[in-house]
Amino acid sequence: MPVTYIEYEDATPEVRAVYDDIMATRKTDWINNFWKALAQDPATLRRTWEAVKEIMAPGALDSLTKEMIYIAISATNQCGYCVATHSAAARKAGMTDEMFGELMAVVGLANQNNGLAAGYRVEVDEKFR
Amino acid sequence: MPVTYIEYEDATPEVRAVYDDIMATRKTDWINNFWKALAQDPATLRRTWEAVKEIMAPGALDSLTKEMIYIAISATNQCGYCVATHSAAARKAGMTDEMFGELMAVVGLANQNNGLAAGYRVEVDEKFR
Amino acid sequence: MPVTYIEYEDATPEVRAVYDDIMATRKTDWINNFWKALAQDPATLRRTWEAVKEIMAPGALDSLTKEMIYIAISATNQCGYCVATHSAAARKAGMTDEMFGELMAVVGLANQNNGLAAGYRVEVDEKFR
Amino acid sequence: MPVTYIEYEDATPEVRAVYDDIMATRKTDWINNFWKALAQDPATLRRTWEAVKEIMAPGALDSLTKEMIYIAISATNQCGYCVATHSAAARKAGMTDEMFGELMAVVGLANQNNGLAAGYRVEVDEKFR
Amino acid sequence: MPVTYIEYEDATPEVRAVYDDIMATRKTDWINNFWKALAQDPATLRRTWEAVKEIMAPGALDSLTKEMIYIAISATNQCGYCVATHSAAARKAGMTDEMFGELMAVVGLANQNNGLAAGYRVEVDEKFR
Amino acid sequence: MPVTYIEYEDATPEVRAVYDDIMATRKTDWINNFWKALAQDPATLRRTWEAVKEIMAPGALDSLTKEMIYIAISATNQCGYCVATHSAAARKAGMTDEMFGELMAVVGLANQNNGLAAGYRVEVDEKFR
Repeated sequence: MPVTYIEYEDATPEVRAVYDDIMATRKTDWINNFWKALAQDPATLRRTWEAVKEIMAPGALDSLTKEMIYIAISATNQCGYCVATHSAAARKAGMTDEMFGELMAVVGLANQNNGLAAGYRVEVDEKFR
Repeated sequence: MPVTYIEYEDATPEVRAVYDDIMATRKTDWINNFWKALAQDPATLRRTWEAVKEIMAPGALDSLTKEMIYIAISATNQCGYCVATHSAAARKAGMTDEMFGELMAVVGLANQNNGLAAGYRVEVDEKFR
Repeated sequence: MPVTYIEYEDATPEVRAVYDDIMATRKTDWINNFWKALAQDPATLRRTWEAVKEIMAPGALDSLTKEMIYIAISATNQCGYCVATHSAAARKAGMTDEMFGELMAVVGLANQNNGLAAGYRVEVDEKFR
Repeated sequence: MPVTYIEYEDATPEVRAVYDDIMATRKTDWINNFWKALAQDPATLRRTWEAVKEIMAPGALDSLTKEMIYIAISATNQCGYCVATHSAAARKAGMTDEMFGELMAVVGLANQNNGLAAGYRVEVDEKFR
Repeated sequence: MPVTYIEYEDATPEVRAVYDDIMATRKTDWINNFWKALAQDPATLRRTWEAVKEIMAPGALDSLTKEMIYIAISATNQCGYCVATHSAAARKAGMTDEMFGELMAVVGLANQNNGLAAGYRVEVDEKFR
Repeated sequence: MPVTYIEYEDATPEVRAVYDDIMATRKTDWINNFWKALAQDPATLRRTWEAVKEIMAPGALDSLTKEMIYIAISATNQCGYCVATHSAAARKAGMTDEMFGELMAVVGLANQNNGLAAGYRVEVDEKFR
């Protein structure tokens, strides 16, 4: 069974409204596959887009920091799609080669130390409880 | 809802037969919590024990190597129970402090590099396809 | 088998040198359990500390950003120890309640969308390849 | 090194017996790659097929429910192969577009909340212990 | 740093409104720790509760099926808190011992086969693309 | 954005020195994609290679055992790249078909039992604490 993507011209008004908001918010004229796949379920499309719009907007953390956190999680989970799209978003938000290098270094380090902490069965220090 | 453990004296003959085989195979006189929890579902208890007995027995790989592989996976998955029990089993099978140290170093390294490979989106080399 | 922690007074000179460098670098007078557990294997202790010291130092990304990325990965991996210690480090580096709230929102969102991308089998857009 | 698949005509009698049982049980005339790869190790092929046959058969839970649970786990683990094959199986067992949409929504939600629970370090309520 | 839980009596009107809706929807008179921790960030509390309320409600899939899918993911991710609370919810929704046993069997099987598919590098069959 | 690989002829002297050491240590005349991607960040390239060289060298555990542990973790994490490259390395270090079969069987089993232990909420036995 091939993956189904709903194109704008085939979309219901409800789906089109979300697509329009995505393009307006991102100031682009296209929709990436993630949304076109979710559009099979308009409720999930809407809920997910609203969460992305609310959460990824600049606040106490700026957009670049949020995109880098998103990449770190996606690399940890081996989500190739998510790494690819959010790397593009992070670059657009100003991520330099140096920043990307340091981001990756932390990704490697934290995954390493998470494994070590579990393997050595390290208990939380009194102080951090 | 507390976790339920089926003790030997409360077990059905079917469950007791598995417990007996575990103790005979391992040359011990007690059953650890994993099996006492699984005993709530005798079919899973039996199937899981038979798989453990078959897979963890020495073959092309010796028992110690298998226990260390098991620990590596359990640390990666953050399964505290599994790390604790299989570390004991590995020690019993001859794992020295030096071996454990090197095992953990590989656990850290592989988890680090898995994250880096995903984050850098590294493609499989022609040669390894 | 209980977890083994090497206290300063029981440590070899090689281990003490690492402990001293940790305390000097962090301007504290104590060592947390992670290092005391790793000290069972001085080579891993040294290598891991050197990586932490090098990677977590401010560079193109500041310390706070790095600590938040570290927390995001640790929460994704369900590493309770790592979340606890690096939350403390992030607070020390200036993480406010608002920042922590937004960090967690991104953690939830990315983990959600990683699962959706896999379940919907979304393919990387031509543009992001 | 390319992946090795054992075709029916190249299989040993032991492997053919498993292939025959797979096709008879599933009422199909072909074998998917998973089994053809496992056939490199007849013991794992047999053990894994017997577990699948026993576990995925309708019981207290019907086949469709089991297939959806299987998909949820495979999406969480980012196992593209497993999502693809079990999505086909679930469709065959009666999964509608609406059911798939709700399944995915739960996949996203649970992965999100698992991350939040770890990041906020939420402790099990007295009542649930 | 201890985990912070916001009790009803200490909550802002915004948080109380969510707590009230949780208790009304679930027909209970108490709030579990997950929500009391999220309440530190009212926006996340509200968004997460609205998603839970919308997604976990009976639809094309009944509540019990959704709770079991939730448990399967939480066990896969080693989220102890989430397994504990949603096991209670599933029991309340009618999960019998037999159902729980079969759910766990699928959890074990899918995690096993996800690992095998990756280790054997199985490629998606032409038919399932 | 395509993935960037730094070829030997385009590399800085610092990167070339690492490439030379990789080829000399491995007695090969080529560099695989992982290193060519990491070379974008010379500090990570150097640190990672030094860790690999130190950790994967034979010690209390031989190279083959280490490679198999590495594969087990990579399969658990669904890192296709890492499974592919380290399967080749393990074969080179002497892994037979039988060894690979048993390795995979343990990978499946441990991932299964990790899920079962979490789902059944099994507590660590007094004896193993």
